[in-house]
Amino acid sequence: MVLQLNDNEIDAVLKKVNFEKMKGLVPVIIQDANDNKVLMQAFMNEEALQLTLTSGKTHFWSRTRNRIWLKGETSGHHSLVKNIFLDCDNDAILFKVHQLGPICHTGQETCFHNQIVVKRTEN
Amino acid sequence: MVLQLNDNEIDAVLKKVNFEKMKGLVPVIIQDANDNKVLMQAFMNEEALQLTLTSGKTHFWSRTRNRIWLKGETSGHHSLVKNIFLDCDNDAILFKVHQLGPICHTGQETCFHNQIVVKRTEN
Repeated sequence: MVLQLNDNEIDAVLKKVNFEKMKGLVPVIIQDANDNKVLMQAFMNEEALQLTLTSGKTHFWSRTRNRIWLKGETSGHHSLVKNIFLDCDNDAILFKVHQLGPICHTGQETCFHNQIVVKRTEN
Repeated sequence: MVLQLNDNEIDAVLKKVNFEKMKGLVPVIIQDANDNKVLMQAFMNEEALQLTLTSGKTHFWSRTRNRIWLKGETSGHHSLVKNIFLDCDNDAILFKVHQLGPICHTGQETCFHNQIVVKRTEN
């Protein structure tokens, strides 16, 4: 089941979230609800959060394109919201999602696919 | 084993990370390496990242206190770095950690403990 909120529930969430610290934006984390992989990090403004809560599909604020975008708007690789968690001071949001297709534009299943590997030869 | 990098390795990481998008800061995600719970979201500037990579303990930039802080500097609840992943465009970092004690100042094991729960009565 996708988590979609009604108007009263959305108002309550919007009131709680602290958008002030980042001048209208809040950092969000997208995590796979099935295997708990962290899939991506992005930002939402109030409208993107409202659209996410209404539709059950993640919407973000693109700082480079300066507009709202629906994740998967061209690829169809939507992130369907299953659970939402606010952090202790309400300035970050964790979305646990059912991910349709790879989330990363590179085709990888997570955007965090570049591991820092330390290789040392023992002397 | 805690992941501690040497100077050359640190230089390579610092060069990769895009600090420009947030005027000197990069959003970071702290995830438990054992059970994959997302523990907290924070920000690092270049110095905080360098200190993290050198010591193997997470250091952050506090936007409210306007200074670097070592996670657990008063509580002893350090986050020991096990693995590091950059995202696809190098503007977010995921740290998988071994967490000593609860990470949240409230005593909860994760800062993301406020779940948005929707309760609807069926008519």
